[in-house]
Amino acid sequence: MGDTHDHDTTQRPFGEAVQDHYSEFAGHCYGCGRLNEDGLHVRSFPEGDEMVAHFRPRPYHTALPGLVYGGLIASLIDCQSTGTAAWAIYRSEGRHFDSDPPVRCVTASLHVDYVRPTPIDADLELRSTVVELKGKKVVVSTSLRAHGKECARGQVVAIRILEESPPVAG
Amino acid sequence: MGDTHDHDTTQRPFGEAVQDHYSEFAGHCYGCGRLNEDGLHVRSFPEGDEMVAHFRPRPYHTALPGLVYGGLIASLIDCQSTGTAAWAIYRSEGRHFDSDPPVRCVTASLHVDYVRPTPIDADLELRSTVVELKGKKVVVSTSLRAHGKECARGQVVAIRILEESPPVAG
Repeated sequence: MGDTHDHDTTQRPFGEAVQDHYSEFAGHCYGCGRLNEDGLHVRSFPEGDEMVAHFRPRPYHTALPGLVYGGLIASLIDCQSTGTAAWAIYRSEGRHFDSDPPVRCVTASLHVDYVRPTPIDADLELRSTVVELKGKKVVVSTSLRAHGKECARGQVVAIRILEESPPVAG
Repeated sequence: MGDTHDHDTTQRPFGEAVQDHYSEFAGHCYGCGRLNEDGLHVRSFPEGDEMVAHFRPRPYHTALPGLVYGGLIASLIDCQSTGTAAWAIYRSEGRHFDSDPPVRCVTASLHVDYVRPTPIDADLELRSTVVELKGKKVVVSTSLRAHGKECARGQVVAIRILEESPPVAG
């Protein structure tokens, strides 16, 4: 799993994050796939009606000196949101995310507002809530905080995929 | 400059891309900084009224198998857009981007619509146009294509920064 030992969330046991239960097919995502050795390994955990992830940027995830690259923030919000969307679908079906069949969502649209510069020497906390769940579509709202201050806000429209007929390029 | 030899755009001479002329202070961005050895090295070139960048995803930039990670697409759109915004400001001041003082913009908001799955075995072409330029604010629209088909559309609101009083965290 590469250098994930410096993530707070990877210190929690395997199986507690929704991404731990993505199928092998869906587990290679650069942002959150447990099977992608070069990836970011975003892991999202339920806390009441929210999903929470923590991420410690690498020193090279720079924007301007001392600040976190906005594309990394977009990536974290992306995977945290699709994870939250999957969790919401499991919940709507009355089951835990360790049950079959596994649920996986992909991103239809992503919006990020950069509220203030994000310090790179911080643990980033992402908290997400479900705004809407309608059929295969889930809208997720996310707040990213560092040192207790909100630095970015995200809104993602996620769509459930069917692994027997997954999206292909073309 | 890391493994940038597999980017089409890095085969063009240094000095032709707007990012080649970012200041040393602003040149460490993970997405487009020439001084970030671990970064993506997005480079944006003027073509008429458009800015163009090409990027070849690495094999590990996976979403689902065979498809490009959406967070990478957001990152490419982010840096291509802030580069386009800087270029627009240079143009509005009647000068080329090899002139002083260097211009650098940062992202206030980022929106990406994922139009269709993006193949990972493709050269990605990003084309950006300036939608609005008003003072320090520039709105940039971007289309990302692979194998001739549009796969994503982006809209970024970028803000010019003053390097003598750059944004800081807090």
